[in-house]
Order: sequence, then C-alpha cells, then structure tokens
Amino acid sequence: MGITITGTGSYIPKEITSNKDFENHDFYNEDGTSFSLQNDVIIEKFKAITGISERRYAQKKYSTSDIASFAAQKAIDFAKLDPETLDYIIVAHNYGDVKHGSNQSDTVPSLASRVKSNLQIKNPSCIAYDLIFGCPGWLEAMIQANAFIKAGIAKKCLVIGAETLSRVTDPHDRDSMIYSDGAGATIIEHTEHTDGIISHATATHALEEANYIYFGNSNNLEDQDSGKYIKMNGRKIYNFALTNVPKAMKNCLEDSGYDIKDVKKILIHQANEKMDEAIVKRFYGLYDLQAPQDIMPMTINTLGNSSVATVPTLYDLIINNNMQGHSIKKGDLIMFASVGAGMNINAMVYKA
Amino acid sequence: MGITITGTGSYIPKEITSNKDFENHDFYNEDGTSFSLQNDVIIEKFKAITGISERRYAQKKYSTSDIASFAAQKAIDFAKLDPETLDYIIVAHNYGDVKHGSNQSDTVPSLASRVKSNLQIKNPSCIAYDLIFGCPGWLEAMIQANAFIKAGIAKKCLVIGAETLSRVTDPHDRDSMIYSDGAGATIIEHTEHTDGIISHATATHALEEANYIYFGNSNNLEDQDSGKYIKMNGRKIYNFALTNVPKAMKNCLEDSGYDIKDVKKILIHQANEKMDEAIVKRFYGLYDLQAPQDIMPMTINTLGNSSVATVPTLYDLIINNNMQGHSIKKGDLIMFASVGAGMNINAMVYKA
Repeated sequence: MGITITGTGSYIPKEITSNKDFENHDFYNEDGTSFSLQNDVIIEKFKAITGISERRYAQKKYSTSDIASFAAQKAIDFAKLDPETLDYIIVAHNYGDVKHGSNQSDTVPSLASRVKSNLQIKNPSCIAYDLIFGCPGWLEAMIQANAFIKAGIAKKCLVIGAETLSRVTDPHDRDSMIYSDGAGATIIEHTEHTDGIISHATATHALEEANYIYFGNSNNLEDQDSGKYIKMNGRKIYNFALTNVPKAMKNCLEDSGYDIKDVKKILIHQANEKMDEAIVKRFYGLYDLQAPQDIMPMTINTLGNSSVATVPTLYDLIINNNMQGHSIKKGDLIMFASVGAGMNINAMVYKA
Repeated sequence: MGITITGTGSYIPKEITSNKDFENHDFYNEDGTSFSLQNDVIIEKFKAITGISERRYAQKKYSTSDIASFAAQKAIDFAKLDPETLDYIIVAHNYGDVKHGSNQSDTVPSLASRVKSNLQIKNPSCIAYDLIFGCPGWLEAMIQANAFIKAGIAKKCLVIGAETLSRVTDPHDRDSMIYSDGAGATIIEHTEHTDGIISHATATHALEEANYIYFGNSNNLEDQDSGKYIKMNGRKIYNFALTNVPKAMKNCLEDSGYDIKDVKKILIHQANEKMDEAIVKRFYGLYDLQAPQDIMPMTINTLGNSSVATVPTLYDLIINNNMQGHSIKKGDLIMFASVGAGMNINAMVYKA
C-alpha cells in the first residue's frame, strides 16, 4: 500500500536547436565586455562542461500550458484514468505562458486552469493550481500531492512540470545555450500494490542564495530596453549545489530507512553534466563509496535544461524504455533529486 | 486542539487614489468604442455598483514581495514567533513582482524566497513557495498549510496574500478602478486551545469559465503594443459567482457540522459590493433565512479589490479592532469565502 506513480507522460518539442545554431550569436560577459575567444571555441568549452550538444524549443504556436496539456493527456492515457476523477491538477512552472515574440508572462488564469480547460475536465472538485519553486517545482508538487493524499483531501493527482525557457533567454548570454523547453506529467494515487513514495526532503536557502538565479538585463549593454531574461551565477550555483545537494539526498535516504546500496537509479535535474557527476560522486563519497556505473541516466546532451520538465521527462523516457541501457523494474528503489532557483533543493526516495 | 491562526498582519499602502483621479482617463469599451456618458457619470455608476470610492497603490519603490514582507513581519510579531521555527512560507499572488514602469512579471526566484530573504530567515528547512490560484489564493494557501500540518510535514506556516494590481491595469478600461494593492499575512499552527479550521471547500470551474478573468490588450485600440493587462468579463463573473459561491459555502458549512445560525461573520473577497451582498443574500436564502445585519464586514469602499490580499487584510483589521462595529471573539464561528480567476472558489469554516 502506498502513494505511487500510476501514469507518466512527456512532451519533447520536435524543433532541435544545435550548438552550431549559436555560432553567429554576439555573446558578451555580464559586464558587457566581449570574449577573447571565438564562438566555436566558446561553444566547444560550453559543451565540454555542460554536456549539451542540442536542445528543444517549443513551436511558436505553443505556450507552456499547451505542452503541459500534451504531456498530461499522455499520463492520463498511460494510467487509464478517467480524468473526471482527478482531485488535483498541479502545474509547476516559473514563467507562466510567454507567447513567442512577447516578453510578458501570462499567469491569469493559472496554467493549471488552462490545462484543465484544454483537457475539458468538468468536475469542479478537481482543484487546479500553479506552483512556483524554481527547477525543483515538479518534485515539490509531487511532495504536495503526497501530503494532500496523506491528509485525506485527495486520492488522485495530476502533477505537471512544464516550461518554455527559450522564451526568456538572453541571446547575448552564453548561458542561453543551456535552456530548453519541455513538459513532463505524472499521475499519483493511493494504490494497494506498491510502496511508492517512501521519504522526501526539501530545503530553501534564501539568504544571498535567493539571487543566484534571477531575472536580469541583457549582457548586451546596448540592448537594455528589451526587458529582462533568466540569468544565473553559474559558479556560485555550482559550489552551492555541491555543498548542499548531497547532504539533502543523504537526509532523504536516511529517512527512508533504506541503504545506499539499495538505490538503483538517481534521477537528478539536469542543468550541467559535470555538476551532476560531481554531486553524485560526493553523495556516494558521504558513504565512502564510489558512484556505481549507470546510476544516473542523463538526457542533458540532447534535451538541455528544461527546468521543471527535466525530471518527469527523464522518468517517463525510462519507464517507456526510451533511454538505452536504463530501466526501472517493479520494486526498484529510485532517488529523485533537484536543485534550482530559490535556491531550492529537494529529494525523494521512491519504490517502483 | 486544532490548526489555528496565531498571528495576523497586513500592509495597506498609504497612497490613496480616489475616484476623482480617474476623471481625466480616456475610457473605452472592450471593442474600442467610446462611451456615450461623461466620466463623472461613469464613475458615479461604478461607485454605485462596486461600492468603491478609493483604493490604495503601493509606492513606486515597492514590489509585491516587499509589501508581502511587511505584512509577514507584522504577523510574526503578533504571534511572538521565532521565524526560524517556520516550516513553510507560502506566498499567494498572481502576477509576481512587477516593477513600477515595467510590464514584465518577475517570479524567479519565487516571491516566497524573496520574503524569506527579506526576513533573513536562515533555516533551510523552512520551505518557501508561491501559489497561483486567482483571488482565492490566500485562502487556498491556508487550506494547503492545513493539509501539510495534518500530513505531519509542518507545524507552523506563514501564509501570505500579496498583489500590486495597479501595475497590470489598463488605464483605458473602466474596470481599472476596481483594482488595488495590498498584502495580508497569517501564521497558522497546531495549538491545544481552540478548534481553528473546521472545514473547507474548493472548486475550480475551468471550461469556458477559465477565460472570465484573463490577460488582454488595452481597450484603446491605438495602444496595442504596450502589453497586456488584467481583464475581466464582469457580467459573466457576476452570474457565475451568484450561481456557484453560495453553493460552495453551503457545502463547506454542512461539512463543518455547524448550523448557519452559528455563523458570526462572513469574510468574503471584495470585488464588487453589490455582488457580495447578492451572494450572501442567496447563501442565507438556501436556508430560507435573511442575511443578518453586519454579518459581512466590507473594506471595498476604501481599499478596492487587492486580490489575494483582501481577505487576510480584512481579517487582520477586525482582529486588531480597526473595523468599526465588527469584532471576532474567542469561540466565534467565522466563514471565509473567495472567488476569482481560474475560475476558483473556496470557503472555510473557522472557529476563533
């Protein structure tokens, strides 16, 4: 008996933007100065660190709530669920619907209401709300849904992470190459058959860390009127994540009562391949162990960082046997983990 | 023993904008046509229906997260709480931080992280997130906090509703006179002494209703490039609210086990005085009763509609004896209710 994932779905936009597509960008440092390196060298270094060679952008005609609806429909179909029986639709995002060509975020009505409208769900008792929690938003929404089920106010929840970061990137910032669009969705409900969610941990570090990821001006000092863009202090985030994420993961695992050797897969948010490798290495280091081969499936190479969509998309790909060399079998112990704007960190131990 | 409000605080901006300040506005219908009436007549009719004679706008230097922090600090002081013991900071809003003069919503990091940063709360276990749920956001955040406490993952929560609607209003739309800025905050926690939250009900109506309140173009057809503004279909909202809010309130009251004659005050979201009067009249009508005198304290006359901030501000004013003729004594049964974008409705029966 437990609170388990009974359906998954994802929407990976078809439009591929390769690293080569950035070769003619005018990149600047944060202070507006130019780089001494040529773009091809910048891009090669970028790829070596982040692992990203291409990313996906949503078609111009779609907004975040559209792709959220596509992923949601797949999760509903997977779970063979009557959508009218849903108690909650939770959409984790960070920028709302940003129409292509606009720089305004549209969050009224909530994206969850738009998804509910797109899915044509009539039942008024199905509560639709949005959660803003940085990249860890989908995992935090899972933790909230878990709490609602435990508190007795829900039985079945649709939990979505969806984002179109391509709409808020500064073309003059090298970091723009990191961001991607996507949507992932899960159905969680109370079932008799499996353990499901065993433990979870969340942390918000909001002293100076609150501004590590922020909304800021273009790196092109001659273009200060076009609005603000997603910005990050990569070096500080790297150090922050390495210090705090392994600890949060360890707390969560200890709460679960399981041993680290029971962990079959770690599904971690993908913002930087080198950073993820270092986090997992340090996590195992806390137990004087080396990270096992293939413990951490990676999608960043082709999908980039799609924020809240990354982890549920990764899970969906594995469950549907679309990640070569990776599978999740019934009874496998999985660890979810994420870190992002806030700065927020969360982790979950889950038995499939 | 119960989950109760142990602290309240609000921030009412000092800057008063009177109806007279709109006399020189160029108002248009939604289709861009002019009104046949003079502005002074339009404003007089507006006041007769909505009850609004003035509203408050935040000072230019403040954003939503700033005024949220001011209200939060007051609630913390009221509760005599060590803020480091908070398990959650939940900020309900709908448009993020919109700097004066900008039309971009800034939601990264979350406003809850900004509040946590402003309050200089160190404890990483204090989880900070934002909730988007239309005007009923603060009450829904209370329902979520209640669930977290029931589920055993929280003991003390800071729940805030804050909005600066003045930053997203179309000056060419008569409805712009409705909107106001403000922030209200509450501390809720598990205590031994009172009943606290007894029952709650929530509904999301998202078929065609999803677009009753939306982000749309200016009514001035010559000004279509300045971005989008809060827009609403007042007539449809009025009919929707009258049909659905009294029913939701009745469901909630029935769940509580109390009789309608036990209800001492109804604290309802204030978007339109005539609408609120009609809702409460119809609510009592469901019991073949007439609404008692003074059952529904009103702030709309001087504070307008400050969205998520309205209900917690109203509660705070009464608790602090700042609403002439209204008081809440220990043991009083109160009903909270709200309706807004989504379209969302919620209600809560609370024993003080």
